[in-house]
Amino acid sequence: MTKETKRVHSAAETQTSDASGHGGDARPSGPGGTAGSLEPLQSLVAEDLKRVNDIIVEKMHSPVALIPQLAGHIVAAGGKRLRPMLTLASARLCEAGAGREFALAACVEFIHTATLLHDDVVDDSRLRRGLETANAVWGNKASVLVGDFLFSRAFQLMVADGSLVVLKVLSDASATIAEGEVHQLLTANDLATDETAYLEVIEAKTAALFAAACEIGAVVADRSEAEQAALRRFGLNFGNAFQLVDDILDYSAEQQALGKTIGDDFREGKITLPLVLAYARGSEEERQFWRRCVEDLEQGDGDLKHAIALMDRHGALEESKQRARTYATRAVEDLSGFPDNPARHALLQAIDFCVDRLY
Amino acid sequence: MTKETKRVHSAAETQTSDASGHGGDARPSGPGGTAGSLEPLQSLVAEDLKRVNDIIVEKMHSPVALIPQLAGHIVAAGGKRLRPMLTLASARLCEAGAGREFALAACVEFIHTATLLHDDVVDDSRLRRGLETANAVWGNKASVLVGDFLFSRAFQLMVADGSLVVLKVLSDASATIAEGEVHQLLTANDLATDETAYLEVIEAKTAALFAAACEIGAVVADRSEAEQAALRRFGLNFGNAFQLVDDILDYSAEQQALGKTIGDDFREGKITLPLVLAYARGSEEERQFWRRCVEDLEQGDGDLKHAIALMDRHGALEESKQRARTYATRAVEDLSGFPDNPARHALLQAIDFCVDRLY
Repeated sequence: MTKETKRVHSAAETQTSDASGHGGDARPSGPGGTAGSLEPLQSLVAEDLKRVNDIIVEKMHSPVALIPQLAGHIVAAGGKRLRPMLTLASARLCEAGAGREFALAACVEFIHTATLLHDDVVDDSRLRRGLETANAVWGNKASVLVGDFLFSRAFQLMVADGSLVVLKVLSDASATIAEGEVHQLLTANDLATDETAYLEVIEAKTAALFAAACEIGAVVADRSEAEQAALRRFGLNFGNAFQLVDDILDYSAEQQALGKTIGDDFREGKITLPLVLAYARGSEEERQFWRRCVEDLEQGDGDLKHAIALMDRHGALEESKQRARTYATRAVEDLSGFPDNPARHALLQAIDFCVDRLY
Repeated sequence: MTKETKRVHSAAETQTSDASGHGGDARPSGPGGTAGSLEPLQSLVAEDLKRVNDIIVEKMHSPVALIPQLAGHIVAAGGKRLRPMLTLASARLCEAGAGREFALAACVEFIHTATLLHDDVVDDSRLRRGLETANAVWGNKASVLVGDFLFSRAFQLMVADGSLVVLKVLSDASATIAEGEVHQLLTANDLATDETAYLEVIEAKTAALFAAACEIGAVVADRSEAEQAALRRFGLNFGNAFQLVDDILDYSAEQQALGKTIGDDFREGKITLPLVLAYARGSEEERQFWRRCVEDLEQGDGDLKHAIALMDRHGALEESKQRARTYATRAVEDLSGFPDNPARHALLQAIDFCVDRLY
């Protein structure tokens, strides 16, 4: 499963926003009824995010100099901070006023960063967002141990916040993420993996932290359990849509035409929904192709192109897109009970931005 | 730093107790004034430890079957459970009555186990206590991720206990351990490492968890901050003595005569106190020897024997032993304010057992 390059972890976090965010262009509007854009979310929390970044820099300090060096490398390369932005926007949506969300958004980012460090070790990745990974620069050992440090630091920050509810939300999410990562490891190169297993993996490894990030916004605002649960569901559905889109784009000829690297999952033999569906619907001859490429990792020129053609033939990419839209639609509905304010608008546009990338 | 075998993590946890524990033999008594033995500690907490083990087995469960498999492998191979025993004995010493120590002792063991899993990945270890390591059986990836799971699980257990004080103690300890591990990584193969750096490393990577394990016993008993601090200091001094002894025994001709594997630290180029002292006191010719063996890792037959001879010549082993005894003596003093009950007696004998191994 070694690979020399790895595509950006999440295209949504690096792709330059090109939508005006005001629905004035010709593209179809998304489930949220807007032409998607991350810009409203970024504008909404820009000042808050600066405070979060200050906390991140302050709290990754250690007398052991390699820790801030290595952590700084990955934090700096860490994209647009989607997860802490979700915490900040959720707190805004719930009109939280005490400022607790800043440190907790930093916790969320620390947990995410620790996961990335360990992911890159597990995947033997050498590149992330076009930069060398921390393990490529400092070795796997340092990445494992600094990941542990950031994870511990996140819990220290939560303890300083002092809420057992937050601690429960994020310790549960952390355990679920680790379970999801192990589960994903077991499904790798295994074509017996079905759609249920795939959905369990993405819900655990990705959506659980989106859910926690959003729920915390309601917790720090002392909102009702129903509102906490609604934001939690919103994050879960958003996270599932987000990961599905990421997995679909790895087989996107359009992305390739835009100059993006695609096919990383295929080269690793990672089991994602387009592959699950194409394999399930394939002829015996096609299944032999999939087994050679995915289980035996014997791949040659043209195999990725053929894989995409098979996915197209069986409607696997289209059905996966539909699934992503379904999650996005559910996420939109999860916000229906909240007042129509700028935070809600920004979150809806972020969802639409996520699924717009498919079209 | 790759090595094919690794000695048992801590000889104290596997060595069969051979002392009667009643001071009736001819050996010198230790700093605690007893002929050391782990037996009184083991007897004292035997029933409690069964409950802890039940919690460990229950809480390492996951629907992802590899998690309990892998975790069960290392937990089963995990020796005598010294750290949770310290929590249980400290709780007894403080007459804790609510039974909170059982789950928290399991937390301590989970954190320790997560650290071992990551340590074995970092050290490329193939054997631990004579059994294959988890990474040797299931690979580094699974070990990293299951370690993350156990670590998260520990925090879930703490949250269920509900004490922010405990959460602070153990999240601080976890961050310190990770810092110590990174620091140790930086000192490896680096003869510029001095005694101060060495002592910082062992206090962080080993003694911090001993300290937390003991402090928790006072916390669950609602004892005063002074008593919490005394037990914390006790654990810190015990842990430092414990690690020093472990590091000294790796160069012990007596251990070798008993059939134990020695020299693992030397083969890895790990910087421990005997080596720091021998290098500091060595002639230029000797320093060349150390640089070749430790920095360049160019070692041949007879080099370990020569290393031990140089340590003996400069009194490096003897002075390291003296340092271990000093920490042990401090640990004994830390218990002086507690009543003379079976728990205190058991802890004193455990300290003496620790340093007795040197003679």
